[in-house]
Amino acid sequence: MFNIIEIKNGLENVKGFFCGATNVGMRPDAEDGDVAFIRSEVPCDISAVFTTNTFQAAPIKHFQKYPKDFQTDFVLINAKNANAMTGEKGIEDIDTIMSILSSKINVVNPVMSSTGVIGYRLPVDKITSAFDTLNFNASDSHRTARAIMTTDSFKKELACKVELDNGESFNIAAICKGAGMINPAMATMLCFIITDADIPKNDMDELLAQGTETSFNRISVDGDTSTNDTVMLLSNKKSGLYHKEAFRKALNQMMFELAMMILKDGEGANKLVAFEVKGAKSEEEARKASTALSNSLLVKTALFGEDPNWGRIASTIGASGIACDESKLIIHYDDLLIYSNEFRELDKERENKAYEIMKQESFKVTCNIGMGEASYTSYGCDLSYEYVKINAEYRT
Amino acid sequence: MFNIIEIKNGLENVKGFFCGATNVGMRPDAEDGDVAFIRSEVPCDISAVFTTNTFQAAPIKHFQKYPKDFQTDFVLINAKNANAMTGEKGIEDIDTIMSILSSKINVVNPVMSSTGVIGYRLPVDKITSAFDTLNFNASDSHRTARAIMTTDSFKKELACKVELDNGESFNIAAICKGAGMINPAMATMLCFIITDADIPKNDMDELLAQGTETSFNRISVDGDTSTNDTVMLLSNKKSGLYHKEAFRKALNQMMFELAMMILKDGEGANKLVAFEVKGAKSEEEARKASTALSNSLLVKTALFGEDPNWGRIASTIGASGIACDESKLIIHYDDLLIYSNEFRELDKERENKAYEIMKQESFKVTCNIGMGEASYTSYGCDLSYEYVKINAEYRT
Repeated sequence: MFNIIEIKNGLENVKGFFCGATNVGMRPDAEDGDVAFIRSEVPCDISAVFTTNTFQAAPIKHFQKYPKDFQTDFVLINAKNANAMTGEKGIEDIDTIMSILSSKINVVNPVMSSTGVIGYRLPVDKITSAFDTLNFNASDSHRTARAIMTTDSFKKELACKVELDNGESFNIAAICKGAGMINPAMATMLCFIITDADIPKNDMDELLAQGTETSFNRISVDGDTSTNDTVMLLSNKKSGLYHKEAFRKALNQMMFELAMMILKDGEGANKLVAFEVKGAKSEEEARKASTALSNSLLVKTALFGEDPNWGRIASTIGASGIACDESKLIIHYDDLLIYSNEFRELDKERENKAYEIMKQESFKVTCNIGMGEASYTSYGCDLSYEYVKINAEYRT
Repeated sequence: MFNIIEIKNGLENVKGFFCGATNVGMRPDAEDGDVAFIRSEVPCDISAVFTTNTFQAAPIKHFQKYPKDFQTDFVLINAKNANAMTGEKGIEDIDTIMSILSSKINVVNPVMSSTGVIGYRLPVDKITSAFDTLNFNASDSHRTARAIMTTDSFKKELACKVELDNGESFNIAAICKGAGMINPAMATMLCFIITDADIPKNDMDELLAQGTETSFNRISVDGDTSTNDTVMLLSNKKSGLYHKEAFRKALNQMMFELAMMILKDGEGANKLVAFEVKGAKSEEEARKASTALSNSLLVKTALFGEDPNWGRIASTIGASGIACDESKLIIHYDDLLIYSNEFRELDKERENKAYEIMKQESFKVTCNIGMGEASYTSYGCDLSYEYVKINAEYRT
């Protein structure tokens, strides 16, 4: 068996990795910087999951120009500018940056990741000026985590040690950026996971895809997918150890927790709500109804208003295009029955109980469709004045 | 040929119809009432388009219990309560109301339409008390139009006279309710159109479906479809006249104008924006991209912030799942080129021009996908603090 032990601090716990950040003046207010790096002593296997947006940003296209199963020892990250919709020039800018980087430090197949506003060329001079001040042997995980933030109100950083039966251990750590009602103009979310586990490349691909599906793909968000969304896993094998089930479990836990941190840091969001749809005809139908709920403006505003208005939940399910029947539907808020065929009208007592549940920082809405066996849970947050303010004023 | 002449006032212009409203105390603040009716001297053919929500409200199910091509002379409308998710009891309540109505006045196959909160039984006693105070021979179109409002800030009422070559004419009039970022918990929109044209039933069905597709189905809204959405057309043939093209044109104009009134009355909305997507591979792809734009939270908040952030437009198109290519895309705001392959970065001068365009009460965003010949236009509005306020506080 194995033990997963969550540990303080972050990336520095993983053997053979360095990280740091500096400020080159793209975001003068950001003390911790606007350019960051993660580097490994030795070349790493790398797996990545990218946005499904057709207009992928230049760093993603640059990444995909490397041969399949390439290794890298350097990830450069910048905030404030997404390098998206910048065409061939955007990719050439990365080539320029990387060739200047190569003149300063020995790197193998360096990759880049960007977040910020769409439609502007990278300030290549400013970014490469970072190479004069960055300490490439630093292990400053906190600062790195803060430098990749945009509208995030807190850094997102996790690390764990996976202890095997024989007392030996390997490590996984991650940093992540993204804030709640995720915003494509700001390049939504980036996540960098590093490990010293001796994990085969095939397992990296498989477990990263699985982990993404049950974490970042379950948080909503506004139905949009950014041009820059990126989740990367790098492994330098330095521990010489590996245990697939332990790695899977640790990775899933870590990615789920990071996804919840993104939701909690929702732009102006105050509540985290799980929308479980069960009893659907197929998992696809359960997913459709569940994401319709977590995306619905009307559900989100009702959450913000703490209004036990289950009519909006029901109407959203009815409009989601799945097989359903109002006489078979059952809705709960946490353990409180809110709607069923026999119990349609909410009396004052139950309405008050519902209101108490909705006042909590997080709660669960369960909708049993009563048509089959499939289920799916997605996670959402409320929509507040603050969200409108942040998104109306961003950029200007 | 023919002339379409818009005329003042509303339903009273159509021969042989009566209408009125009264307040029975469901919505004490509404001077003009909460129960309204439209009645014809003689039975009418009726065509209707209903919500695609699986959970259709009881009045829609009640309507559908009549035989195909039934005739009616009476429509009863109430605000404040949607009679949705009320099961068989909701339909029985309508039967009770209609049987009491029949004891007061001679009616043929009366139908009902409701708008308001989901999940509560109708107050049958209150509604039937209306029958004691309503003047069934009234022609009070303004009051009727106001009585069906919920969060609407102004009544929506239109009438026109269609003059044929020989100087004779028939009339069409309509009232409608609905406010911008349409809200399923409030039963979104209702529209009642009456005419004295001698229009065959087949044409009524055909022209109403066409008119709906280019008006109410083009306004967005939040991707949601309410349990109560209803558009009805009643014709009593009283003028004895008909001209298909003239009727089609007048109906389309009237329905489009009503749809724009709904958008302008958007909950907290300040701007009306047309999103034309052209050069798409198919009309279905153009529609997908266009409605993605008018539904996007991020586009809506950028409109509210008057931020010429075309990155959000581009990103939304890229995420909409249609065939597209960033080097072929061209974006205009009104006549101003905002983005093309050769022209990616917005300089200060153009940004200022874009800002001037966005300050207008209405403008057009055109996205040429460059992949084909198909186009589609939908209409949206901005998302303001006020929207969140209205929807967080509604009901409580």
